Amino acid sequence: MPTAPRAEILSIGSEILLGEIVDTNAVFLAGELARLGVMLLGVHAVPDQRAAISAAFGAARSRAELVLATGGLGPTHDDLTRESLADALGEALHSEPGLEAQLRRRMSGHMPAMNLRQARLVPSAQAIDNPIGSAPGWWVDRDARVTVLMPGVPSEMRRMWSDQVVPRLRVRFALAALHSRSLKTYGIGESAAAEKLGDLLTMSDPDAGIYARDDGVHVRFSTRGDPAALQPLVARACALLGDEVYGTDDETLPQLALAALARHGVRTLATHESGTDGALLAILSAERLSDGAARFVGGGLNVTPSVDADALLHLDLIPEEGHGRSRVKIFLEGAAAFAEREVRIHGSGPQRMRRAAFAALDQLRRALR
Amino acid sequence: MPTAPRAEILSIGSEILLGEIVDTNAVFLAGELARLGVMLLGVHAVPDQRAAISAAFGAARSRAELVLATGGLGPTHDDLTRESLADALGEALHSEPGLEAQLRRRMSGHMPAMNLRQARLVPSAQAIDNPIGSAPGWWVDRDARVTVLMPGVPSEMRRMWSDQVVPRLRVRFALAALHSRSLKTYGIGESAAAEKLGDLLTMSDPDAGIYARDDGVHVRFSTRGDPAALQPLVARACALLGDEVYGTDDETLPQLALAALARHGVRTLATHESGTDGALLAILSAERLSDGAARFVGGGLNVTPSVDADALLHLDLIPEEGHGRSRVKIFLEGAAAFAEREVRIHGSGPQRMRRAAFAALDQLRRALR
Repeated sequence: MPTAPRAEILSIGSEILLGEIVDTNAVFLAGELARLGVMLLGVHAVPDQRAAISAAFGAARSRAELVLATGGLGPTHDDLTRESLADALGEALHSEPGLEAQLRRRMSGHMPAMNLRQARLVPSAQAIDNPIGSAPGWWVDRDARVTVLMPGVPSEMRRMWSDQVVPRLRVRFALAALHSRSLKTYGIGESAAAEKLGDLLTMSDPDAGIYARDDGVHVRFSTRGDPAALQPLVARACALLGDEVYGTDDETLPQLALAALARHGVRTLATHESGTDGALLAILSAERLSDGAARFVGGGLNVTPSVDADALLHLDLIPEEGHGRSRVKIFLEGAAAFAEREVRIHGSGPQRMRRAAFAALDQLRRALR
Repeated sequence: MPTAPRAEILSIGSEILLGEIVDTNAVFLAGELARLGVMLLGVHAVPDQRAAISAAFGAARSRAELVLATGGLGPTHDDLTRESLADALGEALHSEPGLEAQLRRRMSGHMPAMNLRQARLVPSAQAIDNPIGSAPGWWVDRDARVTVLMPGVPSEMRRMWSDQVVPRLRVRFALAALHSRSLKTYGIGESAAAEKLGDLLTMSDPDAGIYARDDGVHVRFSTRGDPAALQPLVARACALLGDEVYGTDDETLPQLALAALARHGVRTLATHESGTDGALLAILSAERLSDGAARFVGGGLNVTPSVDADALLHLDLIPEEGHGRSRVKIFLEGAAAFAEREVRIHGSGPQRMRRAAFAALDQLRRALR
C-alpha cells in the first residue's frame, strides 16, 4: 500500500554556491510539496562536482522516499547530474536511440555533438519528455524510493513538474494534503504578537507557526487531520490580536487596499513613488485582479504619471542614518483622499523598499476602512 | 599556521521548506565567501526541529572548517538554533548576565519573558553584538572549526557579517582570494557558445564555467593562483565569440546601454513599458550611476510618464501562446532615436519580464554603437 513520502530537494549548480543566482526552483518546489502534503526534510545546494553530487544523492536517498533534483542536465562539461546519479545507483549510462532521434528532430539543422550526452539514461531510469528544452528529465523508481531529475531552467522545470511529475507522484504515493489556515497582521512585532497568542503557539496538531514578513507578522495553523479543527484557532487568534489583523489565508494587503478603494468609489488607481526603485508598482502589478476591487492601471517611479485614474497614491521613502530606520510619507488624492501620513520602517536594500510599499498599502487600508 | 577553510551554510527555518520565502541570506553569504576565497561545499535548508538542526550542525561540522548558520535565534518557541547547536556540541546552555542586561536596556520599557532565551550561551560560545536587533550572534571556535550563528533578519545578518564576522574570519583563517574574470554575451545560446569556445571550457586552473542568465550567456575563468593567467583566456574567448560579447567583469547591459546613450548626446532617459510589471524600471533603477553615462530619471508602467527627459525608451512585451515564446517590441524617441524593432524571447513569469527588459537594453546597445 502506498504511503506519503518524505522529500529532499537537491539544487545542483556551482553558480548557486557562488551566490550568483537565486535558487527559485527550490522555492517553487518547496511550495508545491507543501500543497501536496509531502513533508520536506531539507534543501541542499550542491556544486558541479561529480563526487559531491553523487554523495548528495546517496545521503538524500538514505533519508527520504522522494528526491527531487534540478540542474546539471545541460550539454556542457560541467553538467554532471546524470553521471553522478548513475554513480550513486551503481548503474551504467547508455545512449537511448529514441531520445537521440527526438533530440535531432528538435535541433533540426545543426546539433552540437555535446548535446548527445542529453540522450543518455541508466537502466532503471525512464525519460521524462521536455517539450520546451533539449534536456529530458529522469524518473527513477528503485529501492522503494523515487528520484526525479529535472532541468534547471525554471520554465522547463515548472512545466515538466506540473504536466508530468505531479501526475506520476499521485499514482505512486498516497498524498495526504496538509491543511493550513493563516492570519495576517500589520503594525505589531513578532514577539509582541507571540506574547498575545500565548499557548496557541505551542500546540501540536494542529501545529502553529509565526513568521515576520515584509507585509507584516503572519500566524499559521496546520494539520494533516480534520481541517475543521483550524477555524476555532483562527477565530481565537483574531480575537487576541484585534485591530492589527488585516486578513486571512490568501488575502493580501494590496488586494485589501484595492478593495477598500473600490468601496470609496475609486475604480482605477495609479501610483507615484520615489526612493523605492518601483517596489509599490511591482507589488501592485503582480497582484491578480479580484472582483469588486479597484484596478491598478499603472504607476511611475520619480516621474508623475500622465494618467486619467480615479485616484493617485503617493509614496516617498526617505532613508535615514543609522539603525536601518527610514521614514515613509504617504498620501492619496482623487475620488478618495487622505492627507500626508508619516510612518517609520526598519530594514535596508530591496527589503526596505518593499516594506515601504506595504506600509503605504496598510495606511490606505486603515484610512479607508 | 592558519589555512583556508571550506565552508557550509545552514539556513534554518521551516518557512524556507514551505516555499514561502526566498533564502536571500544564503545567496548573500555565498557571494561573500566567493569573494573571500572560501570554498563553499553546500547550502542546506533545515526545518525548525531540534533533532534535524542538531544533525545538520553535526554533518556540516564533520565536512567543513567553517559553518555559518542563519535563522532560529528569535524569541519564540520555534527558534531552536541555540538549543540545537548546544546539543551538537554536547554543551549546556546558561543565562549570561551581561547579555541579559543589554537586552533589558534595548527593550527599555517592557521585555517579554520569552526574550530571555536570547541571552543564553554555551561555554565555548562568544556572543556577537547585534546593534539593530534583539538576537545576539554566536562565535564558537572548538575542535579546529568555527561555527557562527547569525540572525535570520537580512539587515541584521548583513551588518553582523560585515562589521564583526568577516574581521574575525580574517584573523582566524588564511583567506586566499579567488581571482575571476568574466565575459558577457547576448544573442547566442549556451551550447552554441560552448561549441565556439571548445577546449577553453574544459581546462582546470584556471577553471572555466559557462552560465545562461537573463542578461545573456556569461563565461567565467577563475584561479587561486596568479591572476595574470586570466587575461589571455578572456582575450581568446572574446575573439571566438565576436560580436555577441557586450562586456567583461562588472560591466552590465544597463550600464553599457546608458553609456551608449550618452555618446549620442542623451543625458537623461525615461522609460515607458507595458506587459513587464516594471521589470525595465526595476533593472535601471537598481543600476549604480557611473561616470559619463546617461542618467535614468524614472519610468512608468502602462502609463506615459510626464517627464522632461532627453530620450524615452518604449518597451512592449506580448506573451504568445505555447512554447513559452514572447514578442518584444522596442523603440527609442528623443535626442537619439531608432524605429521599432521586434525580438523574440523565451521564458515565463517574472523571468520573461526581466528577459524582455534585457532584450530592450541589448537592442539599444546595438542601435547606438
